[in-house]
Amino acid sequence: MRAVMVTPGVKDSLRLVDDAPEPSESEGAVLVEALAVGICGTDREIISAEFGESPPGSDHLVLGHESLGRVLEDPTGTLRPGDLVAGIVRQPDPVPCPNCAVGEWDMCRNGKYTEHGIKAAHGFARERWRMPPDRLVRLDPALREVGVLLEPTSVVAKAWEHIERIGRRALWEPRTVLVTGTGPIGLLAALFAKQRDLDLHVLARGTSGLKPALVAQLGARYHTGSAMDLDFEPDVVVECTGVDSVVLDVMRKAGPDGVVCLLGVGTGEPRDGVDTSVFARDIVLRNNAVFGSVNANRRHWTQGAEALGRADAGWLSSLITSRFRAKDYAQAYGAPGGEIKVVLEF
Amino acid sequence: MRAVMVTPGVKDSLRLVDDAPEPSESEGAVLVEALAVGICGTDREIISAEFGESPPGSDHLVLGHESLGRVLEDPTGTLRPGDLVAGIVRQPDPVPCPNCAVGEWDMCRNGKYTEHGIKAAHGFARERWRMPPDRLVRLDPALREVGVLLEPTSVVAKAWEHIERIGRRALWEPRTVLVTGTGPIGLLAALFAKQRDLDLHVLARGTSGLKPALVAQLGARYHTGSAMDLDFEPDVVVECTGVDSVVLDVMRKAGPDGVVCLLGVGTGEPRDGVDTSVFARDIVLRNNAVFGSVNANRRHWTQGAEALGRADAGWLSSLITSRFRAKDYAQAYGAPGGEIKVVLEF
Repeated sequence: MRAVMVTPGVKDSLRLVDDAPEPSESEGAVLVEALAVGICGTDREIISAEFGESPPGSDHLVLGHESLGRVLEDPTGTLRPGDLVAGIVRQPDPVPCPNCAVGEWDMCRNGKYTEHGIKAAHGFARERWRMPPDRLVRLDPALREVGVLLEPTSVVAKAWEHIERIGRRALWEPRTVLVTGTGPIGLLAALFAKQRDLDLHVLARGTSGLKPALVAQLGARYHTGSAMDLDFEPDVVVECTGVDSVVLDVMRKAGPDGVVCLLGVGTGEPRDGVDTSVFARDIVLRNNAVFGSVNANRRHWTQGAEALGRADAGWLSSLITSRFRAKDYAQAYGAPGGEIKVVLEF
Repeated sequence: MRAVMVTPGVKDSLRLVDDAPEPSESEGAVLVEALAVGICGTDREIISAEFGESPPGSDHLVLGHESLGRVLEDPTGTLRPGDLVAGIVRQPDPVPCPNCAVGEWDMCRNGKYTEHGIKAAHGFARERWRMPPDRLVRLDPALREVGVLLEPTSVVAKAWEHIERIGRRALWEPRTVLVTGTGPIGLLAALFAKQRDLDLHVLARGTSGLKPALVAQLGARYHTGSAMDLDFEPDVVVECTGVDSVVLDVMRKAGPDGVVCLLGVGTGEPRDGVDTSVFARDIVLRNNAVFGSVNANRRHWTQGAEALGRADAGWLSSLITSRFRAKDYAQAYGAPGGEIKVVLEF
């Protein structure tokens, strides 16, 4: 059968072979007929040999992680022949990290997962492939034409779930969303904002063509230029360019209690001689969260009193390095460096 | 009675007056005898006239937001004479924002709050002050010597609460904490890490004196130099310096799924001619959260399929700008710019 593959580590080794072996039953019980694969920047990085790893014992890697297929047979009876499905890309290591062990493999902590079409597992760019039934997601037959978008959509769904979970660290009533970038991830992030009935703004570079039109069809406002010049402060930002200058701008532009989600890892291509995407790439690929915190409400004061009560009294006393009488206020407020806590007593 | 005050906006107007009026009953039913106030950078900024606002109708501001006092009388019966108390600093506007309305005033969205000793409300650096009973926090009598640390401790309690809430967006089993900075906030943040039984590391500048000793007494490892040179990747970082270069270093050093909490707003003093704390200050004072997100687990794939099903089919179709047959794979993978999603069909 036909399959699109590369030899990982060998630049421009992309090829279509006609005599690829049928998928092995060890890959899973469900046999699927491929309908389509989507292509993204990761594929191009694999073709450029920046990325990509063959399965153990293989000298090649079948490409394709954005899949759509139709079930041919499922001896387990979980799915029916004809079902429209997509394959889940990441698979935990047989000895999973604590996160992978509970199904949170997108938050894998030891990096030992495999990924179909990317890392140590063949992909979906072949006429037929196999998966265990619990690694397939069934799609409504009405999604025959666009179901191949499910992989990037799952990435956006995760982003929005985490936006909402992080937002709910306190009261969370977002109104305004800014999406930066109009690639597939940016446009799908905008779709999710619209499905949440939020006031949607999209910032990108082009001023004409399909992308501004697709933004307009969502009922969103389309902006170009710098995020710093926008006349509003978004409650949510979904940053999909990965360009450090845009990342830093949206971090400064977000409104009070705002949540900024970084999805873009950029191209890594230098601008003015500087790799503009290093900063965002680190935060994105590690699922890191950075937040600023100021002030405290009643509950935190109570928690604070409890923590002081549990602490070693001598250690706490040492934090107060100077105590002044009220009459010596000038000395107290002008206390030199090296102090930890200066206290004025009445 | 004696009170320490400034004339906001007038530099070095700090003074101790002997004939300050007794606190007005409109300030609250509970009369408190001041024991101590703590002094921090905000006080110094107010004295330098960078900050600070008198209450309406007053030409001065009594300083002091880190308080400790003893109840003299409480006609409401909530507190007893002799109770050790601290006053909560921030008070919501009479017309509160949605967050303030539910007690989450530390996350105020419209900036219309007042703060005792800082913004439009007199502080606690006076012999007697009054507060409503529900704006006072009772402290264990054993905390007589150190209870004045409660205000900075409440800030740290909030930070840790939010670290844990943000961490719990997925499975959350942190092991290693890095605290940068050894001011009162940094040391109290380290105390909280220890009370959570985490492997604690503190990074600061000095190599001798009280601060390294206080860190050692917590059973923590004390580091100097750059965070980038540490031989571990912390699960949690509590950044208390506010220096942009340190902020950026710890953001890059945090381990997988790591949470970085920014508490430091720095001094705003330039280093090498550059204000080093602008970046962190923005994020801290707005309670912003920034996170990177990659990949998706099963639940997100299901959410994605559901979102595609609810979307306009025509709009989704437009995202797929080119479809190629498998035999034209080379053209598909080499598709030029301007595409949104390129698909290879089998």
